Amino acid sequence: MERIKPRTLSGFMELLPPAQQQMERIMEIIRSSYALYGFTPLDTPIIEASEILLAKGGGETEKQIYRFSKGDSDLSLRFDLTVPLAKYVTLHYPDLSFPFKRYQIGKVYRGERAQRGRFREFYQADIDVIGDGQLDITNDAEIPAIIYTVFSRMGLKKFQIRINNRKILNGFYAMLGLTEKSGDIMRTVDKLEKIGPDIVRAIFVDDLGISAEQADEILGFTAIHGTNDEVLAALEGYRGRNALFDEGLSELSTVARYLGGFGVPQENFAVDLTIARGLDYYTGTVYETTLLDHPEIGSVCSGGRYDNLAEYYTDRQMPGVGISIGLTRLFYVLGEQGMLNDALPTAPADVLILPMTDDLSAAVSLATTLRSRGLRTQLYNEAKKFKAKMNYADKLGVPFILILGEDELASGVVTLKNMLTGEQQKLSPEAAADFVADAVAKHKGIAPVLDK
Amino acid sequence: MERIKPRTLSGFMELLPPAQQQMERIMEIIRSSYALYGFTPLDTPIIEASEILLAKGGGETEKQIYRFSKGDSDLSLRFDLTVPLAKYVTLHYPDLSFPFKRYQIGKVYRGERAQRGRFREFYQADIDVIGDGQLDITNDAEIPAIIYTVFSRMGLKKFQIRINNRKILNGFYAMLGLTEKSGDIMRTVDKLEKIGPDIVRAIFVDDLGISAEQADEILGFTAIHGTNDEVLAALEGYRGRNALFDEGLSELSTVARYLGGFGVPQENFAVDLTIARGLDYYTGTVYETTLLDHPEIGSVCSGGRYDNLAEYYTDRQMPGVGISIGLTRLFYVLGEQGMLNDALPTAPADVLILPMTDDLSAAVSLATTLRSRGLRTQLYNEAKKFKAKMNYADKLGVPFILILGEDELASGVVTLKNMLTGEQQKLSPEAAADFVADAVAKHKGIAPVLDK
Repeated sequence: MERIKPRTLSGFMELLPPAQQQMERIMEIIRSSYALYGFTPLDTPIIEASEILLAKGGGETEKQIYRFSKGDSDLSLRFDLTVPLAKYVTLHYPDLSFPFKRYQIGKVYRGERAQRGRFREFYQADIDVIGDGQLDITNDAEIPAIIYTVFSRMGLKKFQIRINNRKILNGFYAMLGLTEKSGDIMRTVDKLEKIGPDIVRAIFVDDLGISAEQADEILGFTAIHGTNDEVLAALEGYRGRNALFDEGLSELSTVARYLGGFGVPQENFAVDLTIARGLDYYTGTVYETTLLDHPEIGSVCSGGRYDNLAEYYTDRQMPGVGISIGLTRLFYVLGEQGMLNDALPTAPADVLILPMTDDLSAAVSLATTLRSRGLRTQLYNEAKKFKAKMNYADKLGVPFILILGEDELASGVVTLKNMLTGEQQKLSPEAAADFVADAVAKHKGIAPVLDK
Repeated sequence: MERIKPRTLSGFMELLPPAQQQMERIMEIIRSSYALYGFTPLDTPIIEASEILLAKGGGETEKQIYRFSKGDSDLSLRFDLTVPLAKYVTLHYPDLSFPFKRYQIGKVYRGERAQRGRFREFYQADIDVIGDGQLDITNDAEIPAIIYTVFSRMGLKKFQIRINNRKILNGFYAMLGLTEKSGDIMRTVDKLEKIGPDIVRAIFVDDLGISAEQADEILGFTAIHGTNDEVLAALEGYRGRNALFDEGLSELSTVARYLGGFGVPQENFAVDLTIARGLDYYTGTVYETTLLDHPEIGSVCSGGRYDNLAEYYTDRQMPGVGISIGLTRLFYVLGEQGMLNDALPTAPADVLILPMTDDLSAAVSLATTLRSRGLRTQLYNEAKKFKAKMNYADKLGVPFILILGEDELASGVVTLKNMLTGEQQKLSPEAAADFVADAVAKHKGIAPVLDK
């Protein structure tokens, strides 16, 4: 028979078992953290009618989308979880309670140019709060608390949730009479960290036709820094000159004020006037999250407030606020940076039973007992030599093995071997189960990420 | 602006929040049960190169597959989890330990004709044990134990795992000199329950050209019934006439013998000689699982033993045994049969905090406290009237609400309302948290399925 060479498409993550276990642990942390804040899980189709996904149309999205026909249907794979959410809340509006708080962790598809660390199939892990007509600003303060909980539970320590408000930016540029140029200005400010203030000023003056005074005023504004209280105090100095600015400042102050109550430590968030995000979607609060020791990887969790989630499907005004974790990329980056915690147990079982007799009855009963105690137990069923069995145990990476040979059966005990230390002891089956259960309980709290 | 009418494609399941919570609970039971038996989770891409998925080629698969081009690539959506597993074990062979035990819960795609209860996107929840060169029969006995654990934990009681062995069937037909007709015979026997023995006999004699004596012998064989021990004893009467038959009978006896030790009660499995499954893939043990009160829905979990998982990709012989739960269809059927348990909590939160003051600081702190105790807590942030807030609580279906008004703030208490009974009491925040935590703990064991 002619063989097909097996391969996985480039841009598609496919993990080996230990890495998959790490990924599962991280997903479980995200899932349980989102649920802790009262968000409900959703699962929408990966395939949607193209007209639904492309309602907004144009731009990069349309080029990158996986679109195809099946019979008479024009179908596409979702490229994010936001457009399907907009469809969902419009379609199921009568059955939902608003504000509607949902989370969704799912794969999305973008046919980007393949390159290292870029994925065509990747997980997004999103939360959004959708209001019906209006949505209180306090929701915007709760979002960073969720980001903080997710990343802290993962084991991350040195991360910062950066917050800004688009109304402050738009209000500020309106004060200067630069509203029409604000898009270009913000795109340039976005590069500030990369290219430095001198080049930014040159672009302002030479390319955008902004006066030197205005350029200085913008650079002075974006340079405002200090503690969150200091930044907010500096912003108060601009109050009264533009209504939109004042509104944005009040919103930002409210968000900052409640963050402490939501349990976010001062050192994990920063009011940062350089954060703008994409230009036409977000209308108020915006978030980015950076790993302080790894600024080069950019934001690992971003989002913000938008005025109108579902304008392509309904006249109903549905403002929302949400964030998205690019989970596949985050996992990849954590691996690249050596930040995945080796101490996290990644074996498929807590204990492996190696029977050394032909009849497996005793081993089968022992496995059933261990499983009834909730211990993940693998039973080695193959009639191989002792050495082959031990090699299997080694390669699997299980923390404990239980050996059941003629001697053990005769005296009603099992041999428990700690695979890490090599220590061996003969115990009653119950005592062995207790021993393993204690060890498993001790490992329960190990975080999947190590942030030294 | 012109609006696009929102819709979800037919054949694609999209659940409302309470149903999604039920689904999540069922998935969690499957996941944790599979893990309990020492299987490792895998997650492979939904898109693969068409040449990989269609290596076997032909038949229904090729017609139903979602296949499309992106750039120069000929791509397809996976139609099951077995072909991607075959690719995975071949591709990653050097990094895996054999027997390789994996589970995977994921969406697969088949462009079937849309009809009620048939899905084009659906979850499969699979386990497989893959051997390197050989695989002991004891693995075949462990599989039904996993099925039993999964379905019992869901809350199902009246289900039966039916077991047979293809070698017994093939051996039996070889005894009668009917090997070449065995495919047609088994396809006919498959319809026995539906069309009855008389029509089956007529097909045998008239269509398949089988003698009346042989037809009677086949019908006598398939009619063997009784307890598992009685069926196995009856089969022993055929021993010695065909080597393949004898091998199959020994395998089936071994599987039946170990099942008790694996914790499967007698009433939940049956040796059933009418089970054959698909014809060219399975080579030994075969499984079907039926709900005894709902035979019309057919098997809800099927699988078996195969000789060669990855023959299209490698010369290496990799026998395996596995099962697949058609999860989306199972969930749909359970709903249709009224078997989803209404008592399962499906609200997004254990408790909802309703602040009745403008300043939310106290409510925010209370939410943080409850969450730090692991209680899923939703905070209502909107500045609405009391009635609107209560309506929201009602619609959300939360079991408890905590009201924080001026009075409560002044006296340092919260008002806890049990939404089911309407009872209300003023408690300290700590006492309220204890109360809710107790109630949540009591609801932890509620099964998602009700099998009266």
